[in-house]
Amino acid sequence: MQSDIEIAHQAVLQPIAAIAARLGVSEDELDLYGKYKAKLNDSLFRRLADKTDGKLILVTAINPTPAGEGKTTTTVGLGDALRRLGKQAVIALREPSLGPVFGMKGGAAGGGYAQVMPMEDINLHFTGDMHAITAANNLLCAILDNHLQQGNALGIDPRRILFKRVLDMNDRVLRQTVVGLGGKGNGIPREDGFVITVASEVMAILCLARNIADLKKRLGTILVAYSYAGEPVYCRQLGVAGAMAALLKDALNPNLVQTLEGTAAIIHGGPFANIAHGCNSVRATSLALKLGDYCVTEAGFGSDLGAEKFMDIKCRAAGLHPAAVVLVATIRALKYNGGVKRDALGNEDVGALRRGADNLRAHIANMRRFGVPVVVAINRFGTDTEAELSAVEGICREEHASFALSEVFTKGGEGGLDLAKKVIEAADTPSSFLPLYDLGLSLKEKIDTLAQKLYGAGEVQYTPAAEKALAEIAALGGNKLPICVAKTQYSLSDDASALGRPKGFTLHVRDARLSAGAGFVVIYTGNILQMPGLPKKPAAELIDIDENGTITGLF
Amino acid sequence: MQSDIEIAHQAVLQPIAAIAARLGVSEDELDLYGKYKAKLNDSLFRRLADKTDGKLILVTAINPTPAGEGKTTTTVGLGDALRRLGKQAVIALREPSLGPVFGMKGGAAGGGYAQVMPMEDINLHFTGDMHAITAANNLLCAILDNHLQQGNALGIDPRRILFKRVLDMNDRVLRQTVVGLGGKGNGIPREDGFVITVASEVMAILCLARNIADLKKRLGTILVAYSYAGEPVYCRQLGVAGAMAALLKDALNPNLVQTLEGTAAIIHGGPFANIAHGCNSVRATSLALKLGDYCVTEAGFGSDLGAEKFMDIKCRAAGLHPAAVVLVATIRALKYNGGVKRDALGNEDVGALRRGADNLRAHIANMRRFGVPVVVAINRFGTDTEAELSAVEGICREEHASFALSEVFTKGGEGGLDLAKKVIEAADTPSSFLPLYDLGLSLKEKIDTLAQKLYGAGEVQYTPAAEKALAEIAALGGNKLPICVAKTQYSLSDDASALGRPKGFTLHVRDARLSAGAGFVVIYTGNILQMPGLPKKPAAELIDIDENGTITGLF
Repeated sequence: MQSDIEIAHQAVLQPIAAIAARLGVSEDELDLYGKYKAKLNDSLFRRLADKTDGKLILVTAINPTPAGEGKTTTTVGLGDALRRLGKQAVIALREPSLGPVFGMKGGAAGGGYAQVMPMEDINLHFTGDMHAITAANNLLCAILDNHLQQGNALGIDPRRILFKRVLDMNDRVLRQTVVGLGGKGNGIPREDGFVITVASEVMAILCLARNIADLKKRLGTILVAYSYAGEPVYCRQLGVAGAMAALLKDALNPNLVQTLEGTAAIIHGGPFANIAHGCNSVRATSLALKLGDYCVTEAGFGSDLGAEKFMDIKCRAAGLHPAAVVLVATIRALKYNGGVKRDALGNEDVGALRRGADNLRAHIANMRRFGVPVVVAINRFGTDTEAELSAVEGICREEHASFALSEVFTKGGEGGLDLAKKVIEAADTPSSFLPLYDLGLSLKEKIDTLAQKLYGAGEVQYTPAAEKALAEIAALGGNKLPICVAKTQYSLSDDASALGRPKGFTLHVRDARLSAGAGFVVIYTGNILQMPGLPKKPAAELIDIDENGTITGLF
Repeated sequence: MQSDIEIAHQAVLQPIAAIAARLGVSEDELDLYGKYKAKLNDSLFRRLADKTDGKLILVTAINPTPAGEGKTTTTVGLGDALRRLGKQAVIALREPSLGPVFGMKGGAAGGGYAQVMPMEDINLHFTGDMHAITAANNLLCAILDNHLQQGNALGIDPRRILFKRVLDMNDRVLRQTVVGLGGKGNGIPREDGFVITVASEVMAILCLARNIADLKKRLGTILVAYSYAGEPVYCRQLGVAGAMAALLKDALNPNLVQTLEGTAAIIHGGPFANIAHGCNSVRATSLALKLGDYCVTEAGFGSDLGAEKFMDIKCRAAGLHPAAVVLVATIRALKYNGGVKRDALGNEDVGALRRGADNLRAHIANMRRFGVPVVVAINRFGTDTEAELSAVEGICREEHASFALSEVFTKGGEGGLDLAKKVIEAADTPSSFLPLYDLGLSLKEKIDTLAQKLYGAGEVQYTPAAEKALAEIAALGGNKLPICVAKTQYSLSDDASALGRPKGFTLHVRDARLSAGAGFVVIYTGNILQMPGLPKKPAAELIDIDENGTITGLF
């Protein structure tokens, strides 16, 4: 089979205006970015405000493994398959970050015959949203340090500045820095650091804002520092929320592209799910629900991270009601969870598969807690054996979960027809979505609920720093907010090496931070890097472009 | 009179495809960015390759003063005026940096009734070129520090890393930093610093590259560091030139917009002229010459910086031949040069004007040295008196320079008709363009020529660091390159306070650096900040956006 980028280069795309027209979107409601990308503007939001929503399908997964699960691929293929069944399906995805594109993971535009196009553009700058977020974030930082330099009227304590600069890059040397060196003209020296753009609160705000007024209000509410007197200092006190919102004006509008089969895909916003809330924007999802009978969307990493935050943060904030959850797994990943080494994943091993399937069982049970029907999608690989596939089917039957094989990677939408039928069936089942915890609980009660009910923890331990942070956040009124747990994606626990279904472990909360603008409290467990590093052989070294502008090496 | 942004908001723009069509550019040769911006793609370059060029008009200025000169405004208005006279005029400008937009200077889209539209977009992200440069630059930096971390096979000396990270922001605390703190996992600690994106060699390369192959080759040639053994380390040795070029693929294509009067303007590339080479891209200027009878372009700051580099670096590299130079001045700025304080510039003072006009005389003489006819354009203000205007006209007569008043700020193209006629006349005069110095001279001989002939210096002094750097650069083959002087824009000398026509001063060269990819040697004089700071009241605080997306406070 050809590589993703080879398949992509052979695709014949339709003008994006034609894709939009099929959704009833006029050219005036569209701002083109080249021939195959467009932003959907406010006039479209206004026209569709009162239209009935389609059905919301969330695609999530078991805990990711080096074996690969194929969540985005399944999301894209499911959208294509629904359309083959005569449904108006609109896909809603997150935007890729340049960090993984140049690092280890590669792009995030699906794979094989289930890709969104143009994949090079989507994986590189796309329509510039990520850069706009970087600029808005860093404007606030520059204004903050300038405030210190110009007399510090607000009395900001340089040792207690919470808001950091960002770059959309995996760049480990920026994690911990000292800035302002070189004398009086170069500012007030202080410890500082960069996080990756997708971890910025500005990204979370963009993804949760309903419109420009809401965006500006949320930006103004960012808690940037404490003063020497211990008082909170908010972005609005620095007078820069308006300029930040102006920088984000276009970035707030969702981006329309298409799949290889011409299905509409809205790609907008992209916080990582391990260090942020992991969902595409409320505006994108809402719009896809207005435009389609079905909106197929995904959340980052496993259901313990992306899907949980999708339910407890995004759906709650935006009043969304998922109609069904698709849980993606692979035979290989389940065997990996069952203890098989990476180079032996191609060998049949039903015993390991059954052990590893405890991870799948946990994710099924977890998603059921939100009151939404679950369809398990096995993303099929050539090495999967009949015995293995039927073992997983049996497990799903035991768990009373619907089951389907997905072959969208090799066959496109055709390979997702069975999955699409099961999803339609599930979404037609009456269900009643409910978040996992009530906002009236205290922050610790929320953490406890999540840790015990979803993660399977025995207890939660807090560092003194975390205790102090939670108390401060509560004092600022943060108790009423949902929580956003920063946690390893590789395990249901906070220990990346604990595969399968760890139970009764201790969850370690080492710090907490109020994202007052986004409207949640970030809970840091384990040692979650907010600025990734590059591997020994970065993907960037494989990327090239020839004299005709043809890009190679993106995957 | 209304503010720039008020005028801009009332403008009725034509679809950019219509502006393009008037130049004979088809929709296939255009990649739209919304309705009023587009990139001109490679198919257009190919089609026009053999077409005869129009005439190249360079707009430059006296040394800038706080009184304001209005170079971009004059450039825009001159383009509009030429079109009123029935000429196909195409304007070629630089892209604004967010640094000054949020800092002190404001935007760079012209002013009054001589503006390019849509001014908010142009001043904020435009089509994302600046962000693409930032990303490409910082990818190289991340790969470089990762190389150190992963074993440092090239033996790079962390004390001798030349290439710095960039942000498109005025952020003084990033000038001098320490990165890589926090232990083994966070990289190799070292001294580092950020410069503003417009000072990046990647920006210079983008502006001088003819096509994607040339771009990639130049990127690979960036000198990034020296090894412990004292050997140069180039970007290509880190294997990242291909990925950088892929990031710059779209940024390499010039951007088409329009003036308030519907004249085509190509805006592309934007290095500052004090810390970089100060001209828009070779691709933009070349394309404007293919598309128009006249290409009206500008270079940054005064003629000692932007115009000199335009002639000696850009025109030489690209084989361009300017047909005429427009030298912009204001009565107020000339009086300021003559010693009048800022708050008294509204009062008639012919004596001060005559003294300050020595600055104008120097710039006229300097531009003549390149063998190109000069037209002086006085950008008229309401406070200018008849006596003052006729004094300047007399001075121009003494200098045998053509003279015109420009009222494009208040009247648009109508206010530039006299200037346009004088420009047409000048451009019809037979002339023979020649760079100021021969590339066969040594670096010091080039510096001497420039310092003495153009700046008016008596002698040039080199710090030991500069001596050493020049010797190293010569050893690497840099002797044959043109020079790019980093110098204060406020004076013909390297002392910002020396207004008028300083003579016989000493020019202090404190360092030099090989921009091997751009193809010039940067000569640092005085203390030129490559990362500006924000003022006490940053412009960002004035910028706002309302619930309808209307931006205010940009200027």
